[in-house]
Amino acid sequence: MGNLESVEPTLNGPILIVGTGLIGASIGKALVTAGADVHLWDIDRGNTLVAAGRGAGKLDDLADEAYRMIVVATPPAVVAPTIVERLTRHPQAVITDTASVKGAVLSQVTAVAAGHGVDISRYVGSHPMAGTQYTGPLTASDELFVNRTWVIAPRTDNRREDVAQVVALARACGARAVSMDANEHDRAVAEVSHLPHLMSILTAANLRHARSEHLSLAGSGIRDVTRIARSQTTMWRQILTSNRAEVRSQLEAIRDDLDDLLSRLDDSERLEEFLSVGQAGARKLAGKHGHQMVETSAVVVEIPDAPGALARLFADVEDAGVNVEDLSVEHDPAREVGYLSIDVAPDRAQTLTVSMRDHGWSVRS
Amino acid sequence: MGNLESVEPTLNGPILIVGTGLIGASIGKALVTAGADVHLWDIDRGNTLVAAGRGAGKLDDLADEAYRMIVVATPPAVVAPTIVERLTRHPQAVITDTASVKGAVLSQVTAVAAGHGVDISRYVGSHPMAGTQYTGPLTASDELFVNRTWVIAPRTDNRREDVAQVVALARACGARAVSMDANEHDRAVAEVSHLPHLMSILTAANLRHARSEHLSLAGSGIRDVTRIARSQTTMWRQILTSNRAEVRSQLEAIRDDLDDLLSRLDDSERLEEFLSVGQAGARKLAGKHGHQMVETSAVVVEIPDAPGALARLFADVEDAGVNVEDLSVEHDPAREVGYLSIDVAPDRAQTLTVSMRDHGWSVRS
Repeated sequence: MGNLESVEPTLNGPILIVGTGLIGASIGKALVTAGADVHLWDIDRGNTLVAAGRGAGKLDDLADEAYRMIVVATPPAVVAPTIVERLTRHPQAVITDTASVKGAVLSQVTAVAAGHGVDISRYVGSHPMAGTQYTGPLTASDELFVNRTWVIAPRTDNRREDVAQVVALARACGARAVSMDANEHDRAVAEVSHLPHLMSILTAANLRHARSEHLSLAGSGIRDVTRIARSQTTMWRQILTSNRAEVRSQLEAIRDDLDDLLSRLDDSERLEEFLSVGQAGARKLAGKHGHQMVETSAVVVEIPDAPGALARLFADVEDAGVNVEDLSVEHDPAREVGYLSIDVAPDRAQTLTVSMRDHGWSVRS
Repeated sequence: MGNLESVEPTLNGPILIVGTGLIGASIGKALVTAGADVHLWDIDRGNTLVAAGRGAGKLDDLADEAYRMIVVATPPAVVAPTIVERLTRHPQAVITDTASVKGAVLSQVTAVAAGHGVDISRYVGSHPMAGTQYTGPLTASDELFVNRTWVIAPRTDNRREDVAQVVALARACGARAVSMDANEHDRAVAEVSHLPHLMSILTAANLRHARSEHLSLAGSGIRDVTRIARSQTTMWRQILTSNRAEVRSQLEAIRDDLDDLLSRLDDSERLEEFLSVGQAGARKLAGKHGHQMVETSAVVVEIPDAPGALARLFADVEDAGVNVEDLSVEHDPAREVGYLSIDVAPDRAQTLTVSMRDHGWSVRS
């Protein structure tokens, strides 16, 4: 994965968005907000009109030669032929796409283009890592890509200026542009997107065996796990099919883990070991949520043996003016005493310790 | 599953909560808010003090005979012996618990009690269906159980008044009390809670094979799927172990589905069929989220062939004063016209249709 910081981004217009569903219309809205000259086209005129009505750009009304960038945001199955068609029609334009599988698109584009003698060096693949369980332009938002990763898959035959335009596109939408080889990208999305989608599907599909009154016992946990299974099946069938080799290898790894897990159910120590591997994976991911995990130091204060005093303790922590990252209760079985562990930034621990001692609290050193 | 509407609920005090982690302290806070006389005890005095300091009740200071209800909210592994101990110590009290597996607890209680000649008819098992990925009294909330299901597993040897007290407990916490046989409850939680937890664990554990830079491509989907995998492993090991027969049968069903899914990867029609089964399960569940799925009728308006007019269309929908449940764009390939489908309550469809026609829009009949 490459860092694109050094690329000088430029966004030349006019830009045409081909396919104005949720993704295309959201890109359009973000670009309009950023001041770009955006035009829209969708095979379904209702979609085009709604996207335009929602502020995603104007109806496509320029000559083919006028466009400087084409963003192909159609359903996965028609991305490759659309790219080749647009390469031919718009000789002045960089063509990018938003498909969530890059290797398959590139192979298809290469094959179709070769058949027509089309040079594909103006095609730079990309993939904005965002979406919702909704489809269509009605729920489009110019905030959809803010702080999200937008993968760009440049090739050696791409011109540097063309890649820079796609980087500028991603940044104009508020996304963080990273570069990655198409095949590595496809492995990565199989791991972090396609497999999780199928695990969600498997969990939700299993409910067909459940009696309907059992569903009333469902809490927020299973709703979280099955949320993405509600997504449109046609789009997901296309995504999974075009990345099926990677998806298969992920599913096979899960099958091995599932057999392993079954063998651990009767041995609580080995079961907990497995749960810990999952917990570590989930926490590593949680730490990547927008910001990195924060390094903290713990200031450990003895809990006063009177509940009334605890409110005073919390008030004194607040008075110290130190930002609290986490709080937990600890126990010393030997002394039968409880401690409040206050996690703060390492350079603030000393300030908090002094302040708490000044207020008469017993701080463990 | 039984309806408990006919049970006349009474909440007699004082109440003792044994185990003041997240669940025990949250029950305490809800009961204090409801005006009950709540006392707290935890083997870890730090936990008791923090729970009391957070407003979950007073420190345990009454004679054993004074209590009218004991709520055992300890970690799963010690629930059964704690119930039997409390049955002996508090002759005037109904004993309930919050363990998430009911059959195993009942068998253990029955076995331990028989060994000591203790009558267990004052024990009424229950399970509030709520929790977070956090543990301990610091994040306790008196809202944790509001509108959640609280399963009560009454037996033929329970007195009607004792069951009514547990129903009153659930309702005082804002929960919806339902009755269910202990073994049926355990099957249901395996389906809607324990299996989804393990699917989340399997998904998160699989990330151990992923290169660290691949994680930066993770979006909200995998975070949703793996959120519950972050939970405390010790508690989950205890829950899964005590319900392992049901959990095993759920995992075996998933293994069959996984093999089936693998066989469908090369056949896009059969793949989409499987995705649809998952989608149906997930949507059925989503409809149970607090409220039932709303019955709606669609009012279908032709989309004007000028983006500017669309803003006026939305404004006219708003002016009609009808609550919109959903919006979608439809397409008529024969006429090459787009439609906006506006879903509203069935008894409001006529009002909206008339209003839109009055404003000059073409409404499909």
